[in-house]
Amino acid sequence: MLLCDIGNTTLHFCEGERTWRVAAEGFDPAAVEGRVYYISVNAALDALLAGHENWVDLRDLIDWSGYYETMGIDRVVACEAVEDAVIVDAGSAVTVDVVRGGRFEGGFIYPGIRAMAAAYAGISPRLAYSFNFELDLDKMPKNSQDAVSYGYLRPLCGEVMRHGGPIVITGGDAERFAPLFPSATVDRMLLFKGMKKILENRC
Amino acid sequence: MLLCDIGNTTLHFCEGERTWRVAAEGFDPAAVEGRVYYISVNAALDALLAGHENWVDLRDLIDWSGYYETMGIDRVVACEAVEDAVIVDAGSAVTVDVVRGGRFEGGFIYPGIRAMAAAYAGISPRLAYSFNFELDLDKMPKNSQDAVSYGYLRPLCGEVMRHGGPIVITGGDAERFAPLFPSATVDRMLLFKGMKKILENRC
Repeated sequence: MLLCDIGNTTLHFCEGERTWRVAAEGFDPAAVEGRVYYISVNAALDALLAGHENWVDLRDLIDWSGYYETMGIDRVVACEAVEDAVIVDAGSAVTVDVVRGGRFEGGFIYPGIRAMAAAYAGISPRLAYSFNFELDLDKMPKNSQDAVSYGYLRPLCGEVMRHGGPIVITGGDAERFAPLFPSATVDRMLLFKGMKKILENRC
Repeated sequence: MLLCDIGNTTLHFCEGERTWRVAAEGFDPAAVEGRVYYISVNAALDALLAGHENWVDLRDLIDWSGYYETMGIDRVVACEAVEDAVIVDAGSAVTVDVVRGGRFEGGFIYPGIRAMAAAYAGISPRLAYSFNFELDLDKMPKNSQDAVSYGYLRPLCGEVMRHGGPIVITGGDAERFAPLFPSATVDRMLLFKGMKKILENRC
């Protein structure tokens, strides 16, 4: 069973235990033979895929009653993967979603590393630091780089922890954020797990 | 006694109870007669003011031993104004500084409204919302605008509250942030109070 998670810049494929990435730019859907079950947040590729019958959009197989219409399909599929968790998906945005008893309880969106660094740099060149993920978040900062790193990480960290565990981290920056949440599990396969579960429930 | 707090875009003057603002662009220091005590984060104006003896930089009157070298002078002066407080200065950045027993305990920097809105919009046009400051922060969001507003405001709010009170809010966006902190005091004169205190202690 071939699965594909389509982002704005890359297609992430999964078949069995194997996963691989392909650039979205210039991607030709006709190059893939056989059935592909996919989710996509990439509007340009959506239009292209519509003409290929072997590409099956999982969007239509989801029971949307527990979610909201404009919620990113990647967030929905991650939620479908768990019964009880706080999901941190760290990519261009950091989305945090709470699932309790298999039910989506709500979630929020925080800027990802690149967007937040640009925000600080845009305020003043004096704030153009890279974030220090090793920072001791129990100490109030007394220098500029720490003041910026703490400002990005500590509020997010506190808010995530407030919702209790278990915390599951996924997304391209999962490994960078993981040390902030000592009890968290990193699960790079979370979206594919959600996709498989949706298929098992519906097919 | 004429005081002036110089930002990147405006000069904020205070004489007695009266305050007024002047645009930084095209400002001519020679137009002001008599002594002016000022603080400045505006490098371009700093150079211009150096040639005018009636403009006195308060930077040199501050005991910097409790602060750090690259700390914004506006943050330092706000800290000087209080004995015991969590200061939230909401401008192009939101700075949060903790003062206990007249001593700076540390602080952090969070993006201001405009920078954070640009960060979300830069991630995706689908996240280009204006923030809803009236949002109920006790409920996890179930729509996109709330997910963004909550993502900006709730982590900050929790982190500020964690440090206890009293909370003092100042800066150009003080009134917008004030409802997030029910027990907080808005003090638009905080920086001028700090400037006066520095002058009283040293002159």
